[in-house]
Amino acid sequence: MLKFEEALKKIFEIETFIDCEEIHIKNSFGRVVAEDVFTDRMFPDVQKSAVDGYAVCGGNLDRFKLVKTSGITDIPGSISVGEAVFVMTGGMVPEGAVAVLRVEDCRVENNLIFYNKKINPGENINQIGEESKKGELIVKKGTIVNERVFSALAYAGVKKLNVFCLPKVAFFTTGDEILNIEDEYRPGFIFNTNRYIFEKIAKKMGIEVIFYGNIKDDEESISKAIHELSKNYDILVTSGGISMGKYDFVKKVLNEQNYEVLINKTSIKPGSPLMVAQGEKSVIFGLPGYPAAFLTNMFLYLIPFLKKSMGRKDFDHKFLKSKLKGSMHSRANSDYFNRAIVELSNGKLFVYDANSQKTSHFLNFANCNGLFRIPEGVGDVDEGFEGDLLLFDLELS
Amino acid sequence: MLKFEEALKKIFEIETFIDCEEIHIKNSFGRVVAEDVFTDRMFPDVQKSAVDGYAVCGGNLDRFKLVKTSGITDIPGSISVGEAVFVMTGGMVPEGAVAVLRVEDCRVENNLIFYNKKINPGENINQIGEESKKGELIVKKGTIVNERVFSALAYAGVKKLNVFCLPKVAFFTTGDEILNIEDEYRPGFIFNTNRYIFEKIAKKMGIEVIFYGNIKDDEESISKAIHELSKNYDILVTSGGISMGKYDFVKKVLNEQNYEVLINKTSIKPGSPLMVAQGEKSVIFGLPGYPAAFLTNMFLYLIPFLKKSMGRKDFDHKFLKSKLKGSMHSRANSDYFNRAIVELSNGKLFVYDANSQKTSHFLNFANCNGLFRIPEGVGDVDEGFEGDLLLFDLELS
Repeated sequence: MLKFEEALKKIFEIETFIDCEEIHIKNSFGRVVAEDVFTDRMFPDVQKSAVDGYAVCGGNLDRFKLVKTSGITDIPGSISVGEAVFVMTGGMVPEGAVAVLRVEDCRVENNLIFYNKKINPGENINQIGEESKKGELIVKKGTIVNERVFSALAYAGVKKLNVFCLPKVAFFTTGDEILNIEDEYRPGFIFNTNRYIFEKIAKKMGIEVIFYGNIKDDEESISKAIHELSKNYDILVTSGGISMGKYDFVKKVLNEQNYEVLINKTSIKPGSPLMVAQGEKSVIFGLPGYPAAFLTNMFLYLIPFLKKSMGRKDFDHKFLKSKLKGSMHSRANSDYFNRAIVELSNGKLFVYDANSQKTSHFLNFANCNGLFRIPEGVGDVDEGFEGDLLLFDLELS
Repeated sequence: MLKFEEALKKIFEIETFIDCEEIHIKNSFGRVVAEDVFTDRMFPDVQKSAVDGYAVCGGNLDRFKLVKTSGITDIPGSISVGEAVFVMTGGMVPEGAVAVLRVEDCRVENNLIFYNKKINPGENINQIGEESKKGELIVKKGTIVNERVFSALAYAGVKKLNVFCLPKVAFFTTGDEILNIEDEYRPGFIFNTNRYIFEKIAKKMGIEVIFYGNIKDDEESISKAIHELSKNYDILVTSGGISMGKYDFVKKVLNEQNYEVLINKTSIKPGSPLMVAQGEKSVIFGLPGYPAAFLTNMFLYLIPFLKKSMGRKDFDHKFLKSKLKGSMHSRANSDYFNRAIVELSNGKLFVYDANSQKTSHFLNFANCNGLFRIPEGVGDVDEGFEGDLLLFDLELS
């Protein structure tokens, strides 16, 4: 049984070969940049005014003749000593201008501009190349195109972008007790939950998951599903069945299809059964069926692997040190990743117990926004315990 | 000129009337729950086994006769003293069973189950209602349906959900110097950046923004745009022009159309010009044109208002106390929200300066993941300064 860090290391060692494609920047939101992106010109590439005001020539004068009003996209030409041109914020500054005087600091009379302060050369002029020279790095390879990266690329005038291809991901559930979300409830059955956990989080990450269905929990059906999906998908994810001890046909099926089992159990709770196997072209993640165990394994192991498979450089976990409010139960025999309600108080994050930590329970995940680790050997912990928090998002409700 | 907190208070005081609609849970991802949601049955509603094992009757015995193997969805009936039924994890436990003995702890011989430990009554049985009684709260009104809420609703068998209608949001830019993302670059012009900042962040929030175009920067064009959009949209957002001092026709236009100006400037940097006005049916946010100023105003003022307009209960800011690495420049005369590069070190967040804080610069936002506040009156700060961090997301690269 592998420890959490050992398992994660094995997962990160799986080689991922990712193709690239060139796309229009318009379609790049959520994609991962496959090569460093540089500026292709100076920013700005002309002298621009930082204010609405008068571009003037003659640093020692206190009055100027207004010779022109320059529109925002006009090329205002040049000015000589004693002359002024009205320019707008972001508009081009004429050649020969020593500074731009803010309109609210000037007095205008009969086409003359009066200014009674000291003129500082360069004042209110954005100089050519001051933001960036040509050829400077804007975005590093491996960066996901979020709204800020997207906007910066648009700002920089980038048209085509080399991005990593998205991994092709398929998912199936197993278990004859699983109902579809549209079905009427029947006692003893359960609604498919894992499908939605995975589909929705993958969607947030920019990955479309193909749901292959709920597969009958027998050797033939599972073997057939794996065989078919291995041909067309990079990553196969399953929930339930595949990780069960009793019907240990899974190893046999995987061996027959040339998969090497890398992991079959890790020391975390909830959800120690985890099957990770590497095939010729595909990787299989067999996650446990209980939704709480599925979700925990997904956040701890699958999501970082998906990020790596997207070509992201920031694929590893970001645990935040946080302090516990109240107490929290765990057993010393396992590495507990307890569901946590995270709240903000005076700018600090605090962790509260979600009441039930039972693997067979799931409803309280609706109010949880993180997993809080109580490492092996520690056991029950009390208020003030500082531990590693894996925050799901910043929507602290 | 309003201070940040004053402006935010005024914005939160704007009354938002939000309709509700009932939708199928399938379509609820990203929507906001409009009334508390409760369980409609017990969880579980039958006794279930927590393990693969033998449900047995007779707490003092050490051997049982195996009378049945019960499939995952079978209703196993009842057993009498001395009898055992094989049950699967999550499967129903027969009436009369005192406990389920884990398969790996038993010895099976000729249809007899041998067990040589003490049997604890209730062991490995998930009791009816132990997770939830009927009528318990699952999700509070005002909660956004993220992947965990969605999954918990699916798990609970919720079919129809009462959600808040999404606000109708329109956006236009102003400025004759603005190019479309598809256009060839021309010196002195700039590419539309604000459209993408806003569209992409709104999309992440679950709101579709209608882009009305780039409007000519004159009274007639802007008046016409506001008049048309006021009829059909709840929230109008503009960038540039509308907040400019010199061409102060905007107040006139707004007055003519029965808008009351609530805010026209706030003491933040970058981007003190901010116009917020309330009309009969719509609210206008006139944001400054420089992308850095636009983005800062959007995160500080517009996003919380959008969240509130969606019916979310968690609409206010979540500032995290964080410490500065290196130094950071600000002036004592304003409330600075500097762009920040946030990094994680030993589980703590640290803030680094993004080098340029100039309003006219934008490229470095590609690498920023937060805004770091240096309040009015403070000025330059050095390593170790603890301030309020508004983290954009947890993708710390």
